[in-house]
Amino acid sequence: MKIPTNRQIVLAARPDGNAKVTDFNVVSHPRPIPGDGEVLFRNTLISLDPYQRNLMGNASSELPLIDIGQPMPGPTIAVVAESMHPDFAAGAHVVTWSGWQEYGLLNGAGLRKIDPAAAPMSAALSVLGHTGLTAWVGLNKFLDPLPGGTFVVTAAAGSVGSVVAQLAKLRGQRVVGIAGGAEKVRYLKEELGLADAVDYKAPDFAAQLARALPNGIGTLFENVGGHIFEALMPYFNMRAQIVICGAIAQYGFPGAPEGPDRLPELLKAFLYRFVVIRGFALPDHFDSMPDFLAEVAPLVAAGKIKYGEHFVDGFENIPAAFLQLFDGGNKGKLIARIAAP
Amino acid sequence: MKIPTNRQIVLAARPDGNAKVTDFNVVSHPRPIPGDGEVLFRNTLISLDPYQRNLMGNASSELPLIDIGQPMPGPTIAVVAESMHPDFAAGAHVVTWSGWQEYGLLNGAGLRKIDPAAAPMSAALSVLGHTGLTAWVGLNKFLDPLPGGTFVVTAAAGSVGSVVAQLAKLRGQRVVGIAGGAEKVRYLKEELGLADAVDYKAPDFAAQLARALPNGIGTLFENVGGHIFEALMPYFNMRAQIVICGAIAQYGFPGAPEGPDRLPELLKAFLYRFVVIRGFALPDHFDSMPDFLAEVAPLVAAGKIKYGEHFVDGFENIPAAFLQLFDGGNKGKLIARIAAP
Repeated sequence: MKIPTNRQIVLAARPDGNAKVTDFNVVSHPRPIPGDGEVLFRNTLISLDPYQRNLMGNASSELPLIDIGQPMPGPTIAVVAESMHPDFAAGAHVVTWSGWQEYGLLNGAGLRKIDPAAAPMSAALSVLGHTGLTAWVGLNKFLDPLPGGTFVVTAAAGSVGSVVAQLAKLRGQRVVGIAGGAEKVRYLKEELGLADAVDYKAPDFAAQLARALPNGIGTLFENVGGHIFEALMPYFNMRAQIVICGAIAQYGFPGAPEGPDRLPELLKAFLYRFVVIRGFALPDHFDSMPDFLAEVAPLVAAGKIKYGEHFVDGFENIPAAFLQLFDGGNKGKLIARIAAP
Repeated sequence: MKIPTNRQIVLAARPDGNAKVTDFNVVSHPRPIPGDGEVLFRNTLISLDPYQRNLMGNASSELPLIDIGQPMPGPTIAVVAESMHPDFAAGAHVVTWSGWQEYGLLNGAGLRKIDPAAAPMSAALSVLGHTGLTAWVGLNKFLDPLPGGTFVVTAAAGSVGSVVAQLAKLRGQRVVGIAGGAEKVRYLKEELGLADAVDYKAPDFAAQLARALPNGIGTLFENVGGHIFEALMPYFNMRAQIVICGAIAQYGFPGAPEGPDRLPELLKAFLYRFVVIRGFALPDHFDSMPDFLAEVAPLVAAGKIKYGEHFVDGFENIPAAFLQLFDGGNKGKLIARIAAP
């Protein structure tokens, strides 16, 4: 008899700089068997997210690392395969945090049931999942924009940025998105209806920025860091509010980049313009999921918040797909489709 | 008949880098004559402060500049010479914001009477004046240190820093002062009784810092900026609270210094350690003067808050004395004594 297996993608090596396909291995283990109170589930959709680079090591992050040989953690959508838990019937659809593997076993904690009739299931990994929640928490708990002000979002075509940009627009902000490439700029202006969008890869990026920000920046939702943040600093208005949600440009590069040293300029923005900068960690805010869904799910259902998803098929293609996050190759939330639902 | 004169020290040139004596001129005007409701006063003590460099131009500051030929503004202690105002009798002692000149004329607004019996008059320019108020506002309105935490003060032997350090110590903080030179370090440890003090001019500054901060930094009151701030960044604890009160190391140097670029490291401190940095402007808080004096004047009278003053005699010596602020030559609040009270 053939023993049922569970393939995992594990960390093979700590990357130096950007991650490479060879930093991962595909390994096969016997599929786990549920004991009393446990649920065995089969992953169908796996979320690929920039912060996962931070867990691999040699990154700018200060988060704890995973060990070499451990599977990459992260959110998934799964279907219950075998259940020894009264709350989860076989065939039920759930969101898990079981990572890059075909099957997972949990005792019920950490599993959240989703209704496949309410929205496409993939939305629970994107606009109605952890990335949408990140956008909503940053905007609602850490920013209080002045009415009608200029609200800048970096990585604005990304899974977090596009939701922030649309929520801010619904609140009457003049939203300017920063993204890489003409197609993303077109998407932001024409499909999301932002007031303006700027291409950071364009040779006239500085001039585009100046044209898009005639009244400076009142609020900034920052996902990128690095040179894009530094280009925005001169535009910070008095009492500008800034949330640092990510620093994807920095993740692979832990050391200090070559100069000039722009830090004194930021200290001046605190001293003379009283800017406020805040960071936050999503796990501290998971209990906001019901409030978030109560507001955002109807907006998504009504088409008032659009979202993009970028699917890649096949479990073994996950590592190569993951690398796209760092060269801007994906458009919308990157999701691996590894099995039929 | 000789016309009575009023000498002023005016801005002669906008400095390039640190200010020089030749950036100032001494000029002589006819002494003003008070009209109805006006007060002519004779300055006796003139405050010399680092922020005044920012008003001269070619500085890192974003504050409005004074014009070439204008007298340098700032706080003084004066005695009323001739009064056409019912609230200010000749001979009364007042605090003014009349700047570097022998006489001034005001309509009563901006003059605050002081009682020469309550404290030495010079204290109204230092521990019981604008520098003490700056310390108190920064600590009381913008910081809420965790009990027993490590509280770091830069320029800790200075007029603002020394008051902050002592107030924080009175609140149970473990206070570590940063200052330049062995004598200032001795003063901080032995006379102010701080838990520790570190000499930023010493060749083993980094090692001294590591020894003084075994539990990192919970709170930072920052007066210096530049390389000292950058040396402190790695010690910021989770949710460290930071007030940027000044950046004296940067004032003369508006451009970005040579690299490496330390800004990405600070963005990481927001993203992963949730540090909070705030700036403030003292003029927004002048209405706190009564609350400040109610708390701090009794502490000064009881010897629980010590203060240092560094006097320089002679009106014409003000420019040379002012330059000491930027090489750390003064110890305690720098005050020019230009006439008998």
